[in-house]
Amino acid sequence: MTDIATRVHNHNWKIDPIVRSVIDTDFYKLLMAQSIFRRNRDTQVTFSLINRTTTIPVAHLIDEAELREHLDHVRTLRLSRGESTWLRGNTFYGERFMFGADFLAWFEEFRFPDYHLERKGDQYELTFEGDWLDVTLWEIPALAIIMELYSRAVLKGMGKFELQVLYARAMTRVWEKIQRLKALDPLRIADFGTRRRHSFLWQDWCVQAMQEGLGSSFLGTSNCLIAQRREVEAIGTNAHELPMVYAATAVGNDALADAPYAVLEDWQKDYQSNLLIALPDTYGTDGFLDRAPEWLNRWTGIRVDSGDPVERGEAIIAWWKRRGEDPTKKLMIFSDGLDVDVIETLHARFKNRTQLSFGWGTRLTNDFRGLVPDGRLDPFSLVCKVVSAGGKPTVKLSDNPRKAMGPAAEIERYKSVFKVGEQAEMVVEV
Amino acid sequence: MTDIATRVHNHNWKIDPIVRSVIDTDFYKLLMAQSIFRRNRDTQVTFSLINRTTTIPVAHLIDEAELREHLDHVRTLRLSRGESTWLRGNTFYGERFMFGADFLAWFEEFRFPDYHLERKGDQYELTFEGDWLDVTLWEIPALAIIMELYSRAVLKGMGKFELQVLYARAMTRVWEKIQRLKALDPLRIADFGTRRRHSFLWQDWCVQAMQEGLGSSFLGTSNCLIAQRREVEAIGTNAHELPMVYAATAVGNDALADAPYAVLEDWQKDYQSNLLIALPDTYGTDGFLDRAPEWLNRWTGIRVDSGDPVERGEAIIAWWKRRGEDPTKKLMIFSDGLDVDVIETLHARFKNRTQLSFGWGTRLTNDFRGLVPDGRLDPFSLVCKVVSAGGKPTVKLSDNPRKAMGPAAEIERYKSVFKVGEQAEMVVEV
Repeated sequence: MTDIATRVHNHNWKIDPIVRSVIDTDFYKLLMAQSIFRRNRDTQVTFSLINRTTTIPVAHLIDEAELREHLDHVRTLRLSRGESTWLRGNTFYGERFMFGADFLAWFEEFRFPDYHLERKGDQYELTFEGDWLDVTLWEIPALAIIMELYSRAVLKGMGKFELQVLYARAMTRVWEKIQRLKALDPLRIADFGTRRRHSFLWQDWCVQAMQEGLGSSFLGTSNCLIAQRREVEAIGTNAHELPMVYAATAVGNDALADAPYAVLEDWQKDYQSNLLIALPDTYGTDGFLDRAPEWLNRWTGIRVDSGDPVERGEAIIAWWKRRGEDPTKKLMIFSDGLDVDVIETLHARFKNRTQLSFGWGTRLTNDFRGLVPDGRLDPFSLVCKVVSAGGKPTVKLSDNPRKAMGPAAEIERYKSVFKVGEQAEMVVEV
Repeated sequence: MTDIATRVHNHNWKIDPIVRSVIDTDFYKLLMAQSIFRRNRDTQVTFSLINRTTTIPVAHLIDEAELREHLDHVRTLRLSRGESTWLRGNTFYGERFMFGADFLAWFEEFRFPDYHLERKGDQYELTFEGDWLDVTLWEIPALAIIMELYSRAVLKGMGKFELQVLYARAMTRVWEKIQRLKALDPLRIADFGTRRRHSFLWQDWCVQAMQEGLGSSFLGTSNCLIAQRREVEAIGTNAHELPMVYAATAVGNDALADAPYAVLEDWQKDYQSNLLIALPDTYGTDGFLDRAPEWLNRWTGIRVDSGDPVERGEAIIAWWKRRGEDPTKKLMIFSDGLDVDVIETLHARFKNRTQLSFGWGTRLTNDFRGLVPDGRLDPFSLVCKVVSAGGKPTVKLSDNPRKAMGPAAEIERYKSVFKVGEQAEMVVEV
């Protein structure tokens, strides 16, 4: 039987919205938002969309009016009662009351602020300016919208069965990856693929396939909405955004040198245990670890998000040992450009030497390579980053100079302050 | 929105019936039924299920009570008004009024007769006895039920995503075959896969994929219900059943030798043009062609259903030439154990030398080889054949002695009457 009401309701859709919920975002954005809420909510920032794969002419493929409709739709969203209840009542990392009543009261009233969209040649300039607390939440929906509009544009005009077989192939690929991961024991892996997902429904499918295929080895998803609906853990901690804003607003080089630690000092006032994961690479991992205060030794773990992962892993284990810590008790999370090959390599190397965990992103939720002609569904490196804070440009050095960002002069100043020397370049695919 | 009524309706299903329509059968069964209706409706026959792949213990996998439920369900079916309208009003092979009012009046009242089911070791003995006209229509639903119950048994206990990926792989496989077929020009191909299909829904999917993928190169399907629903041509002509019954009921060796031609003499009273397709292999193609009456030269074409297809095709072309016919004006239909490799070979060899057409069966609608462990979804050679008529055992020789059937003494008599010498054995997979 056809549900007539559903059909009629569907006829009336003005658009088929890509982002339909305030919590269709990464969990760490909410953790960071609470931390920002408590200390720096009014810091003026600008976030900007950056397509690192400039060969992809995003603006040729995505219609501006359609893009505006989706961004405008996000501005109509509000936290629903059930979502608020979930944030209040759910356990996150085994703990209740992760989010304070003050923060949640604010979040219930939250509306996405305005955006600035302008076509610049083959690309769009999409920026968000205002209070850090408001603007920060645009990152994930903005990326997800562009990625999905791009997918839709590529798939437009395909036949019904051609499309079904396309998804059949993609499903088979994900499932084969999951079968390979099943062989790794012990395994701890989470979905980190919201921002560059092929589509919402596809991410949701991937999460469910991981649930069925990996059982308890699947830790959960970074996506709050999917975590809520599929009753899995919401996963994530913090991002480069925090040290970048702290650094940009630091006055003088001493304060700048201290900024990455100041972030974490604040962080440990808000969170504990498995949320005490340091992201060390914003201004070079080696220097960050060398100069780290003693209290950082006791943090639960470290996330590796750039550079050669084997080399980075070894350096971190060596640092733990130098600091008198037992690496086998520490958590090491890899999250940079992972796919099954890399996961297998890292697992073989580190599984008995540290508590190993993987945050699997784009190659989980958007691996359609080779499934349409001319690689038109190959993922591209789209990011949405904070580019200025408190009127100053932000800077990121990373462990891979190709991921560095900021004005050249500022990059030089940061390199000198953080004593970063030569860095090996690595291709950034996703 | 959930359609509550649908859900409640589904709760009430006693079984999920495999065969839900009297016309969920091959079109040639209806053509043959009309011919039987006009001349031999009361001939007493027995049809019997035969599993030629005895290594598959069908009775271990399929529950007898469940099998009975599905067979009993078939006995509740009647031709629906819309189905009758379709048979009356549709064009078949470009002609209206293919079925006479007298035959359709009978068909509207038709009920499937009783069956006899008994477990014999690892196999079921499933037989149908009675008037030829009634019993003949059991062949296809009986096979389809056993095949689908077998598939369901193998798939029982698989996870939801594991199942989805299984079908994703099977879809990809069918689609890749279709892409290869697309390269063949000109191409005429039809679905002949009802009897040994994986399931009804799967056959329906395959037909739609062929429609989208091959466009006008896809002629249609042998399945009447799918032809009606998907608005494609219903395809088929006649089968071994006719000469086997004519032969079994022939009195004396002269009448026996004439039986294969008597069938076709009757056939051409009922049908014309593209339905004048001779199936020459029941008692050996070579002898059949050598002794064929002159009027058979003018028939539209010949269907090749056993033996080495290249050799058979060459022999038929040579025969047409000997009889002064232009092979390029004649239709040659291949329908035995086809898959894309064989189709490509035959296409390359015969495309310019005759009007070439393919009836693609089991390897279209049931190719799940290797998709579950231990080949448990590999198709097996299940047939439902007329085994006696008018109190006499039926005999089939075929161009492949492995497809021969009948009592040894009768086979010898037939071989002598039809002057069949040595025959090359070929493996029967499907």
